[in-house]
Amino acid sequence: MSEIKKPDIYKMNLPADLKKLSTAQCEELCGDIRKILIDTVSKNGGHLASNLGTVELTMAIHRVFESPKDKIVWDVGHQAYTHKILTGRLKEFKTLRQENGISGFCRPDESVHDAFISGHSSTSVSAALGIATAMKLSGDKTHHAIAVVGDGASTGGELYEGLNNAGKSDTNIIVILNYNEMSISKNVGGMAKYLSSMRTKESYQRTKGRVERMLDKTPVIGKPVKNAVRNSKNAVKNMILHSTMFEDLGFHYIGPIDGHNLEELEQGLMAAKAVNKPVFVHVNTIKGKGYAPAEANPGEFHGVGSFEIKTGNPDVVLSDSFSSIMGKELCEMGEKNKRLCAVTAAMKYGTGLQYFAKRFPERFFDVGIAEEHAVTFCAGLASMNYVPVFAVYSSFLQRSYDQLIHDMAIGGCHAVICVDRAGIVGDDGETHQGIFDVSFLTSVPNMRIYSPSNYDELRLCLHKAVEDDSGICAVRYPRGRDQSLYDTSDPVSTYVYRHIEGAKVLLVTYGRLANDLFTAIEILRNRDIKCDIIKLVNIFPIDNEVVDIMSAYDAVLFFEEAYYCGSISEKYASICPNVAQFAIDGFVKHGKCDVLLDELGFSAEKMADTVEGFLKDE
Amino acid sequence: MSEIKKPDIYKMNLPADLKKLSTAQCEELCGDIRKILIDTVSKNGGHLASNLGTVELTMAIHRVFESPKDKIVWDVGHQAYTHKILTGRLKEFKTLRQENGISGFCRPDESVHDAFISGHSSTSVSAALGIATAMKLSGDKTHHAIAVVGDGASTGGELYEGLNNAGKSDTNIIVILNYNEMSISKNVGGMAKYLSSMRTKESYQRTKGRVERMLDKTPVIGKPVKNAVRNSKNAVKNMILHSTMFEDLGFHYIGPIDGHNLEELEQGLMAAKAVNKPVFVHVNTIKGKGYAPAEANPGEFHGVGSFEIKTGNPDVVLSDSFSSIMGKELCEMGEKNKRLCAVTAAMKYGTGLQYFAKRFPERFFDVGIAEEHAVTFCAGLASMNYVPVFAVYSSFLQRSYDQLIHDMAIGGCHAVICVDRAGIVGDDGETHQGIFDVSFLTSVPNMRIYSPSNYDELRLCLHKAVEDDSGICAVRYPRGRDQSLYDTSDPVSTYVYRHIEGAKVLLVTYGRLANDLFTAIEILRNRDIKCDIIKLVNIFPIDNEVVDIMSAYDAVLFFEEAYYCGSISEKYASICPNVAQFAIDGFVKHGKCDVLLDELGFSAEKMADTVEGFLKDE
Repeated sequence: MSEIKKPDIYKMNLPADLKKLSTAQCEELCGDIRKILIDTVSKNGGHLASNLGTVELTMAIHRVFESPKDKIVWDVGHQAYTHKILTGRLKEFKTLRQENGISGFCRPDESVHDAFISGHSSTSVSAALGIATAMKLSGDKTHHAIAVVGDGASTGGELYEGLNNAGKSDTNIIVILNYNEMSISKNVGGMAKYLSSMRTKESYQRTKGRVERMLDKTPVIGKPVKNAVRNSKNAVKNMILHSTMFEDLGFHYIGPIDGHNLEELEQGLMAAKAVNKPVFVHVNTIKGKGYAPAEANPGEFHGVGSFEIKTGNPDVVLSDSFSSIMGKELCEMGEKNKRLCAVTAAMKYGTGLQYFAKRFPERFFDVGIAEEHAVTFCAGLASMNYVPVFAVYSSFLQRSYDQLIHDMAIGGCHAVICVDRAGIVGDDGETHQGIFDVSFLTSVPNMRIYSPSNYDELRLCLHKAVEDDSGICAVRYPRGRDQSLYDTSDPVSTYVYRHIEGAKVLLVTYGRLANDLFTAIEILRNRDIKCDIIKLVNIFPIDNEVVDIMSAYDAVLFFEEAYYCGSISEKYASICPNVAQFAIDGFVKHGKCDVLLDELGFSAEKMADTVEGFLKDE
Repeated sequence: MSEIKKPDIYKMNLPADLKKLSTAQCEELCGDIRKILIDTVSKNGGHLASNLGTVELTMAIHRVFESPKDKIVWDVGHQAYTHKILTGRLKEFKTLRQENGISGFCRPDESVHDAFISGHSSTSVSAALGIATAMKLSGDKTHHAIAVVGDGASTGGELYEGLNNAGKSDTNIIVILNYNEMSISKNVGGMAKYLSSMRTKESYQRTKGRVERMLDKTPVIGKPVKNAVRNSKNAVKNMILHSTMFEDLGFHYIGPIDGHNLEELEQGLMAAKAVNKPVFVHVNTIKGKGYAPAEANPGEFHGVGSFEIKTGNPDVVLSDSFSSIMGKELCEMGEKNKRLCAVTAAMKYGTGLQYFAKRFPERFFDVGIAEEHAVTFCAGLASMNYVPVFAVYSSFLQRSYDQLIHDMAIGGCHAVICVDRAGIVGDDGETHQGIFDVSFLTSVPNMRIYSPSNYDELRLCLHKAVEDDSGICAVRYPRGRDQSLYDTSDPVSTYVYRHIEGAKVLLVTYGRLANDLFTAIEILRNRDIKCDIIKLVNIFPIDNEVVDIMSAYDAVLFFEEAYYCGSISEKYASICPNVAQFAIDGFVKHGKCDVLLDELGFSAEKMADTVEGFLKDE
């Protein structure tokens, strides 16, 4: 194998054969991998810039360590595509993020080389410490648990909790910080500035070595300071010898390393491997490396849909979405309401807050990937009579559950949570589906929840939520566009009710499903089945008027794009015995949104069939 | 006022009059306050050691700042008793933690001087940053938001998220770290060691000044290092000038200050007030200061019941509790099962894990106040086929909701969560009542929940949970002792069912309430009302056998010591139309446990009345 000049990645036994190659051969492979990444992501969409940045790093890890005996834990997982390619998933890589294809994140049930589930940020050090601890308990002193973290994840509190425990542990854990000055959008906070300052330093090891020698071996001559130096010698040494934050936390620090220099990377990782204590390896990379449009705009190429490789232009330009409509409306509202503030946890563009951010920079706050802080910070603002609007993806709001109860609800503060990506999100899979917010939000006392099904309702709900100062209001809406075929809005009422003479069955839903359920009603009419419909807009608390309406029917079928336990349909069913629940009963894998909704029984056709079947069984 | 030699705290207008006193007079007051603290806590129970440590600090804060215009946010709040005494609650202080008395934590609805709710750890910097930001937006440049944090809270990730955002903010925030080397129990992790190393340093300001002068003014003579020094001069200066972690995060650092020296404290706080940027003030205190038994055993005097002042001996020695039974049983199990690990988030004694910790120190992990990390760390252990048992208070487990879903449930890992303090906890109030775990745990896919009502069942459930490797098992049990009057255990079945000939009403409950419901049955029998009873032990998932039994009754009354939204009774009611729910419908204030349970309608007498009333209304 070592004679091969130009290795054929498709003919290699990966990852084992990597160790047989020369550095030059590996560098050639890195070029091939970049082509594969760009090619697949340009077709399937996915995370591009972060993955282009970690090609050499991943290669070096697999050359220095031995997966799966050494366990590699990728934080978030959106930088692990090269890892997938190098661990037996090269042929399947073209199915990335597609129905029945491979996941865009790490999944132990997809490969033994995916040591731990990933998707949410800042968990890798905690997981790797669990793994490293297990290795220690099992007497395995030769293998390592390796957490690979981007600098975006460094704003998340759990990462700090992990580092705090890992640094002082008696384990072989290695934490690799992949620093690229650019996480999902511009990184925020003191840590980002700190890391940035370290990026530009010459190798810390070299400097440290020189300073140590200076202090130890050289007599400092100069009368005025002689005593001062003698007195503070230990203090000075302490400060210099423990002068990175990571050493303060107990790690052996190596870096910064050029993350696109394979030789330097391998040397650094070999050194890390040789240290018999927790090691922190600081690697500098360029996000989007090797693809000019991504290097120029790493933020735009973080997560992308399909695009034209030559230009980098997206195949479909999304004109509007629930997110952008929310963002634009909030911006309008901010003009009149000077106490309105907008908060995001590293998702300025994803949540549509860029408009507000541009117009009211002093009232816009990007707190980094720090959802816990975001909610408590909002509560602090609210305690001073500002109106904070925290726009956040449903699955990430799971991080703030305690803060919603403890910091917001107990004090009765008025805050608005814009729950974006509520419901099925599609390609990103289990870790990102927004199917739990209804369950956990309804368990927060005094919570009100709106679930608009179109843009007009979204605007209306946003106004109501900002104006109603009696507590926390959540406005939840799906990813993507308003695809309504019907005009079903009612600006006056908190629900929409459509009655047909003689109908004895009532169908109920809310949010995006309303559109398909109205279509289902048409389908059923063609099958001579008359159904009435209620579309809820204020979905929680339970509406007694709706309960009264429900009670008049023989049967009520409630279709709900949310996890069934703790759902709205469950609550109505607990009051109205004639309500049958049709909700989601477990985790939902990745795939196209409409395909997944159909599989869950939520397409118009499937819902019509469900109703027909139900009536036959009665 | 200034002529008064010995001020009478009961005659002062607080906090305003504090500024009129001399330092010596204030020191006398501190002595009086310590007496009040010891006297009240010895009678009412509460947090003693932490409060004895912050007497001078609190005094200094109120002398230097002007509450409520300056906003003081106490992290956790269990060090804010002196603050309560100094802000108009001296006379009420004897009602501390009692029914209708003042709370043991900070509550804005109790006093305008309590700027923010407290109870859970590590939230203060985030809240204070929200407040400081609101001040800035309002154009208030003269006042400050002040977060006071103990070093225990410094292990919590949200604190780090807050510091990361606060350090770089353009606000007047002041963070005071009250370092006492001892939070609730021995502090853990790299940060603790780092802070400890700083504690012993001479004042950082002085050292820093000397080092700066040395580098700036002194020619270093000595040929071998001349070039090295020239080359690395900037690097060295950077390292020295940014040599505390808090400066790295963007704060102006002041400290360490002797936290029992009023003059030094006031100087430090005046300096902090004068800095027009975020400031971090490092204060060293002695936990338990001024009360010998508490100084000797600060851990034992963190949270206490009533005790004898002279000796420090508790009035009631709790022989056993659900926590200690769990801890002892787990210890037994750890003997046979070498893969069993125990994890706590700074509650080794509170959760009863001290037995396991002593016997199996290598398999015991105190991660500090870091519930997010704890769950992901457990998932890491589980991924290597260890069986982690995370023992945690119900209200603190709220912090781990996302990790339960993302890191444990998606991967299908086998882990055990021992949910201690489930249900009403009493004196600690709203922030600590364990009334949400049923709601949020049932919304985690594949979760199983056991709720034993006595010690025997607890042991049984613990074994089942450890042996059943099909996913996450939660075992939830209340604070305090098993007070069962009846032998109602059934080691074979997952529920206990008692049938009386002719009964047409079924009463259902689980956990601690079972005992009182059995008594209620007796009361009802004396009123000629025959009722059957089901006590659930496996409370989730829903048991179809139980559904079948329920269906045969005219009425089912389900009594549940949990928040009603998302509760078990709601789930049964959604399936069985004849189930009526009696659960908790909002936050529950502090008070004695049995009084609160009675107020909630859960005493035997009240439940009997409810049943009788219900049947009359039917």
